[in-house]
Amino acid sequence: HVYYYACTNKYDLIPYDLTTYYRYCRQRWNIRPSEMSINTLNPIRAIVDGMKLTPNPEKPMIALSIGDPTVFGNLPTDDKVLQAMKDAIDSNKYNGYAPSVGYQKSREVVANFYSCPEAPLEAEDVLLTSGCSQAIDLAITVLCNPGDNILVPCPGFSLYKTLAVSLGIQVKLYTLLPEKSWEIDLQHMESLIDDRTTCLIVNNPSNPCGSVYSKEHLQNILSGEPCSPPGHSCVLYLHDQVFPGCTYQSMASLSSDVPILACGGLAKRWLVPGWRLGWILIHDKNQIFGKEIRQGLVKLSQRILGACTIVQGAIESILNDTPQEFYHRTISFLESNSEICYSELSTVPGLTPVMPSGAMYLMVGIAMEHFPEFQNDVQFTERLVTEQSVFCLPATAFEYPNYFRIVVTVPEEMMVEACTRIREFCQRHYRTCSQDSNELDQ
Amino acid sequence: HVYYYACTNKYDLIPYDLTTYYRYCRQRWNIRPSEMSINTLNPIRAIVDGMKLTPNPEKPMIALSIGDPTVFGNLPTDDKVLQAMKDAIDSNKYNGYAPSVGYQKSREVVANFYSCPEAPLEAEDVLLTSGCSQAIDLAITVLCNPGDNILVPCPGFSLYKTLAVSLGIQVKLYTLLPEKSWEIDLQHMESLIDDRTTCLIVNNPSNPCGSVYSKEHLQNILSGEPCSPPGHSCVLYLHDQVFPGCTYQSMASLSSDVPILACGGLAKRWLVPGWRLGWILIHDKNQIFGKEIRQGLVKLSQRILGACTIVQGAIESILNDTPQEFYHRTISFLESNSEICYSELSTVPGLTPVMPSGAMYLMVGIAMEHFPEFQNDVQFTERLVTEQSVFCLPATAFEYPNYFRIVVTVPEEMMVEACTRIREFCQRHYRTCSQDSNELDQ
Ligand SMILES: Cc1ncc(COP(=O)(O)O)c(C=O)c1O
Ligand SMILES: Cc1ncc(COP(=O)(O)O)c(C=O)c1O
Repeated sequence: HVYYYACTNKYDLIPYDLTTYYRYCRQRWNIRPSEMSINTLNPIRAIVDGMKLTPNPEKPMIALSIGDPTVFGNLPTDDKVLQAMKDAIDSNKYNGYAPSVGYQKSREVVANFYSCPEAPLEAEDVLLTSGCSQAIDLAITVLCNPGDNILVPCPGFSLYKTLAVSLGIQVKLYTLLPEKSWEIDLQHMESLIDDRTTCLIVNNPSNPCGSVYSKEHLQNILSGEPCSPPGHSCVLYLHDQVFPGCTYQSMASLSSDVPILACGGLAKRWLVPGWRLGWILIHDKNQIFGKEIRQGLVKLSQRILGACTIVQGAIESILNDTPQEFYHRTISFLESNSEICYSELSTVPGLTPVMPSGAMYLMVGIAMEHFPEFQNDVQFTERLVTEQSVFCLPATAFEYPNYFRIVVTVPEEMMVEACTRIREFCQRHYRTCSQDSNELDQ
Repeated sequence: HVYYYACTNKYDLIPYDLTTYYRYCRQRWNIRPSEMSINTLNPIRAIVDGMKLTPNPEKPMIALSIGDPTVFGNLPTDDKVLQAMKDAIDSNKYNGYAPSVGYQKSREVVANFYSCPEAPLEAEDVLLTSGCSQAIDLAITVLCNPGDNILVPCPGFSLYKTLAVSLGIQVKLYTLLPEKSWEIDLQHMESLIDDRTTCLIVNNPSNPCGSVYSKEHLQNILSGEPCSPPGHSCVLYLHDQVFPGCTYQSMASLSSDVPILACGGLAKRWLVPGWRLGWILIHDKNQIFGKEIRQGLVKLSQRILGACTIVQGAIESILNDTPQEFYHRTISFLESNSEICYSELSTVPGLTPVMPSGAMYLMVGIAMEHFPEFQNDVQFTERLVTEQSVFCLPATAFEYPNYFRIVVTVPEEMMVEACTRIREFCQRHYRTCSQDSNELDQ
C-alpha cells in the first residue's frame, strides 16, 4: 500500500507510512492560527481593504468615514480634561495596580454621574474597562455561552458581531426602520427569538444611524418579548450625545425589572477615544442578574485588568469639572453639521438622507435603480473617491446595503464642500428609471 | 401523568406540562453567568479569599505579598517617565484612536529598544497591548484551540492557567528544580508533550522564583523536544530585570528557528504597572509563524483595541530618555533587599530560601515536617499573619505547596523587621522531627 497524506499548508502529496509521515511532519513546522483568531472578523476592514480607494489627484481628499472626532483638530477636548490628566500624573497616586474593576473612588464618580432617581447607581454597580469595546466584550461574554444567540440591530455597530461570532455565539440581526427614524421593527425582532436567545443589544443613540429613541419606543421595547423572563437581558450602548431639541431618555430609567448592562465610555462625549476608558453600569433593581453575573464580570475583568490608572485617577475631575459649555459646543457643532449635510443631500436626486437626533453619524439611502452604473453601495462609494475624493463608508459594512454613512465631525467648510461634490457626482450618474418613464408615458 | 421539572436555581419541583412549564419559566428570570466566566479562575484570589487574615493588633502589618512595586512609595518611577506623559498630553497628538496594534512610531521605538543583532526586530514585529496580561492573552489565544494543551512552569505565574482554562485549553505543569536555581526539569517537561501540545511557556526571569536562566540552560530548552516541529512554539515573559552580577540572555537571541512570542511591558521595570502598556515581540527568523499568526494577532487586537494612547505617545521618551541611573538604582535595591532576606532566612531553622538572580521575588521552602502544627503552607502563612502581622503568599497559589513567596520591593527596614518576625515565628513553632531524633539515637 502507498498512502498519500496532505501534511503541510501547501498540500504536497507525500508517501505515507506512519514512521515516514511522522518524520516528515517533524521536519517542518506547521503552526496555524487558532479558530478563534480566524473567526474574529472585522467587516469594516474586510470591505474597506477590498475597495480601490484612489482619490482624484485634482481634489484634496475628504474622509467622512472615520468615527474618530479628533482627526481634524476642530473638536479638541476641554482643557480641564487635559489638566485632570496632568494632575493625576503629578499626584503620583495612580501608578500602581488598581483593582481589576477600577478604583473604588473612580467607580463611585461614574455611578454618581449617571445615577438618577429612577435608576440609582452605586460604586458597586460600575466596572471600569479598557474602552467601551472591552465593556461590550465583558457584557456579551458573561451573558452568553457558545450556541446561544443575541439580537443585534441592523444597521448596527459591527463590533457586536465580531465579538459574538468569535466566541461561538450566533448573531440575529433585527431590522431598524429608516422611515421611522430608525426605530426597531419590533415584530421582526420578536420573530427572531428562540430559547437560546440570551440578550438583546440596543444601541441608543445609534452608530451608524444617529437615531435617538423616544420614551414610548423604549417602553415598547422593554415591555416586549425580548425583555422578559427567563433569560433575555439587555446590553445597551450609551452614546449620550443628543441634539438640544431632542430629549434623551435612558432605557434603565424606564425599566421596572428588565436587568440592563449599559456600556459607555469617555471616547465620544469627551473626545478622547484613544484613552481607552469605558464602563459597564449594572442596572438590576430586582436582583435578577444577582450576585452571580456581577461575580462573573469581576472574574472576567481579572483576565487583563482594566483601564489605565492615570485616566482612572483623572475621571473625577473630568466628569465633575468639565464646563457645560464644552458639551454644548460639541453637540451644537454636530447638530449644525448634520443639518447642513441633511439639507444639502435632501435635494440631491437619488439620495435619501435620514436626519439624526444625536451622536455623530448620518445615514444616506441610495436609490440604486437610479444609478445603474453601480451594482451596490460599495461600488458607489468607491467611485465617489475616484472622481470626487470623498470617502463615505458603504453601509454594507453595517450589513445594510444601499446606504452609506457620513461622519459629521469634519470642519464645516469640508462638510459643505463634500456635499457639493456628492451632488455633482450624483448628478453625473443619475438616470431616470425606465420604469419611471413608462409610468410617465401612461 | 404528572412530571416534575427543575426549573429555577432553587430546583423547586413544579408540575410539568409544556404550557404550564413554559408559563412558569416565563414568570421568573433565570440568568446565569456563562461557562467562560465561571471557568475564569484566579487561584490567588481563591486561596487568599479563603484565608483568615487577622493581623496581630500589637504589630503593624507588613505585606510581602503584593506584586506591585509602587505600594510603599520607596520605588517611584523616574521623573523623565512622568514628564514624558505630560508632554504627550500637552502635544494634543495622542487623543484619537491609534491603530489596534499601536502607533507605528511607538512600535518602532519598542522594536529598537529590544532589537539585537542575533534577534533583530522591526516595527512590524511589535504589537502594543493593554498590559503584559493582554499580550499573554493574545499570544495564547492565537496559538491554541480548545482541546490543545500548553506547557506551563510550576511554580508559575497563575495568569497562564487562568486564561488557558477559560478558553478550554488544557494546562500541563512542568516542574522547576529549586536545587538547580529553578531550572526546568527538561525530562519532566518532555514527558508531558503530546500531539495537542501547541506551546511552551517560559517565564524568565521568573515570577514567583526570581530565577534567571543561563545561556546553556536556554540552549537546552531550545534544542529539546518542546521547541521543535511541527507545532511547538514558545511564549515567553520578559521581565528583563536582572541583578548586576548576572547576565541576562534573551531566549530569542539564541534561537535559530524556534519562533517566539515574547511578552513584556512597562509595569515592573519602569514601575508603573497601572498604566497598562504591554507588548508582544514577534521573533520569527524563518517565517514559521509566517503571515498567518501575525494576521491572527492583528485580528484579535481589534476586539478591544490596545493600550492608552497617552502612554503610547510617551513611550519613545520613556524608553530613550530614562537615565541608566534609574534602572541601576532599582535593580541594586532589589538585589540588596533579596540578599538581606536570603541571608536572614538562611539561618532560620526549617526554612530554605532560594536566592534569586532578578525580578522582585524570592521563594522560601518550608520543611513542613518541622512545623507539625501546620498542615500546609496556607496554614503556615495564615498563622504568620495572626501572630506576627507578616503576610507572604503561600506558594499553593502557584501550585507549588510547602513554599511561600516574598516580594522584595518593600523598604529595607521593613524587610529586616519582617525577617526578624519570621525568625521568631519559626523558632516558636519549629519541632525536631521524631525521625531525626531516631536517627540521632542510632
Ligand atoms: C456603538 C458603539 N459602541 C462601542 C464603541 C467603541 O467605543 P470605545 O472606543 O470606547 O471602545 C463605539 C465607537 O465608535 C460605538 O459607536
Ligand atoms: C510573569 C508575569 N507575567 C505577566 C505579568 C502581568 O503584567 P502586566 O501587569 O503588565 O499585565 C506579571 C505581573 O506580575 C508577571 O509577573
